[in-house]
Amino acid sequence: MDSMSLGSGSIRIGVIGGGQLARMMVPPAIHLGLRISVLAEAEGSSAARAADAVGDYRDPDTVYAFAETVDVVTFDHEHVPQPILRELEHRGVAVHPRPEALQYAQDKILMREKLGELGVPIPDWAAVSDEEELQSFIAEHGGRAVVKTARGGYDGKGVRVVADSAEVRDWFTALAEDGHGGRLLVEELVDFTRELSQLVARRPSGETRTWPVVETIQENGVCAEVLAPAPVENPATLEEAARIGVAVADGVGVTGVLAVEMFETRDGRVLVNELAMRPHNSGHFSIEGSVTSQFEQHLRAVADLPLGDTAMTAPAAVMVNVLGGPEEGPMPVRYAEVLAEHPRAKIHSYDKQPRPGRKVGHVTVTGEDPGEVRAEARAAAAMFR
Amino acid sequence: MDSMSLGSGSIRIGVIGGGQLARMMVPPAIHLGLRISVLAEAEGSSAARAADAVGDYRDPDTVYAFAETVDVVTFDHEHVPQPILRELEHRGVAVHPRPEALQYAQDKILMREKLGELGVPIPDWAAVSDEEELQSFIAEHGGRAVVKTARGGYDGKGVRVVADSAEVRDWFTALAEDGHGGRLLVEELVDFTRELSQLVARRPSGETRTWPVVETIQENGVCAEVLAPAPVENPATLEEAARIGVAVADGVGVTGVLAVEMFETRDGRVLVNELAMRPHNSGHFSIEGSVTSQFEQHLRAVADLPLGDTAMTAPAAVMVNVLGGPEEGPMPVRYAEVLAEHPRAKIHSYDKQPRPGRKVGHVTVTGEDPGEVRAEARAAAAMFR
Repeated sequence: MDSMSLGSGSIRIGVIGGGQLARMMVPPAIHLGLRISVLAEAEGSSAARAADAVGDYRDPDTVYAFAETVDVVTFDHEHVPQPILRELEHRGVAVHPRPEALQYAQDKILMREKLGELGVPIPDWAAVSDEEELQSFIAEHGGRAVVKTARGGYDGKGVRVVADSAEVRDWFTALAEDGHGGRLLVEELVDFTRELSQLVARRPSGETRTWPVVETIQENGVCAEVLAPAPVENPATLEEAARIGVAVADGVGVTGVLAVEMFETRDGRVLVNELAMRPHNSGHFSIEGSVTSQFEQHLRAVADLPLGDTAMTAPAAVMVNVLGGPEEGPMPVRYAEVLAEHPRAKIHSYDKQPRPGRKVGHVTVTGEDPGEVRAEARAAAAMFR
Repeated sequence: MDSMSLGSGSIRIGVIGGGQLARMMVPPAIHLGLRISVLAEAEGSSAARAADAVGDYRDPDTVYAFAETVDVVTFDHEHVPQPILRELEHRGVAVHPRPEALQYAQDKILMREKLGELGVPIPDWAAVSDEEELQSFIAEHGGRAVVKTARGGYDGKGVRVVADSAEVRDWFTALAEDGHGGRLLVEELVDFTRELSQLVARRPSGETRTWPVVETIQENGVCAEVLAPAPVENPATLEEAARIGVAVADGVGVTGVLAVEMFETRDGRVLVNELAMRPHNSGHFSIEGSVTSQFEQHLRAVADLPLGDTAMTAPAAVMVNVLGGPEEGPMPVRYAEVLAEHPRAKIHSYDKQPRPGRKVGHVTVTGEDPGEVRAEARAAAAMFR
């Protein structure tokens, strides 16, 4: 609580998890004069620059000790176990998002139940305990369905499209061995035309701000590109997506940034696919593309400071992810070449060891013409492949 | 040289000096994936977040040890003694800007001599050794003149407007006691209508990029506001200012960011007033107002990476400084109020202990209308006073 230059220096934000999301929270913390520290999983993690502690977020004492050094705890990921989060609150630590909100991002079955309660449109789904239940669902939904593990999936992991329940026998076996009698989530295969994402920031006091709905383009289950704002095909659909985003944020009582990933269906509906309660890949464009980025807004929200303007800084912003290359060789070292050929592209490197398919950076271009902006972002990112 | 995700992770930049300029180099280093470390003067300095070392930049061994941990050394200020800088180069350390360029920012008499050689327009000046010489200059220039110490001045310190040489008798006495037989710089009092600044970035290979010429507004010798771009009163004057900026950058062989501060005179001339060889207060607007900020560009330049686009992101950007309040009390803690009332203002806190007149932060607003943008930036900054 010393050295409060602009009255902000007293707020110490602790981030659990040392990935690129924590890393990208550091720049706005520096600008705002907030003090940020990170509990990283390992030395050399993406946010190691700000890592004041290294330890296992599944170890209660590690987390409690870290929490004692900060005023509010927030997250780079959603994997901190509920008992630890609830004990933190019991000890008087401010935790944002709060455990009762975060559980919906941690467990896809709880999330579906909650979204159903809230009346939010979602794909047909069921929680299934065995292959027989799963096979019935598949039969009732045209012979194919999407099966997801309730916990731990991301970037296409923990998701399979199946025609036969035997295709996830290994998951049922693992659940049985786990001893908790868990279930798998099965959903109808949605006939969607594109994917949308609505980012919402919400303070503990309830103030919310939204960014424009964006279109996200996936490749092999991983986000490849984000177009901000989403091209308007049907204005009513984008309005509906925005309405759903805020309804979910309020309904689950999130604090911080929430990403609501949605399908736009061929018949003009919008269905919620996933929730993420933290800054999200679909919001990276906002670092340059918005007056207030998702990372700055997340800090403001979890510190219960007034939220910033989310207007676009340019008519169009496109973000393209850079993924790690083949395991055999190092990623092409073409950094200087990209800077030289694309002086207006904003290059973001997460300083991570490349592995095939691993997100190691991204490129954002902003400008007047969506098509031209997208072409330049793609061209710059492609040079790293 | 490990963990090169985008080919950039290998470049380690060391910044000598732990003030707000070093602090504001950290965010772009994080985004670019460059590794930055700071040799700060003291614990708790503005850039302490990135400070991997604390020590005295006037102590050779401290600087040499710091330099061994990085690939290139650059600066938050211009005060590192020449012998230390030259020894660093002798040891094979990349130092940017190089000592032979930096000397012109360290010594105002050397600077005036060099600018004269380059044919750059400057005020009438002389280097004077005693009161008699000074009195002659004053008499020849209308009875008043500006006297400056050759070294160590900033933010109006080391600058006096005098009518009688006795008004700087203390400075002559100090110079005599110093034993180096130093001289004071005296200059004509320029009848200027406004002050301009041209920021230039230059790589060791010679590539240069300029931002638009800006207007700077001083109060009590300290920068109060920066209008970007400078309002156009006479296009030829702004072109001349830009030409001078590049001529100086090339002429002194600067690497990194150079700020050329200029007077626009009543009779339509542009005269160089000061040089700063580092990111400069007149370029803070570029964090939000330019595709590539002066801080990112400085890092690119000193690392000899290709320079970024310096186009404005909006038609107008205005930066207003926030200075520390009266020594008796703490600065008004109105941080949350400012965020609430000015959601589109970008608030920068340097996390420094406020002292009267000390720069502790700044506010930038970007937008379409220069007048409206300026009004909002001033209103937001004024709330801190």
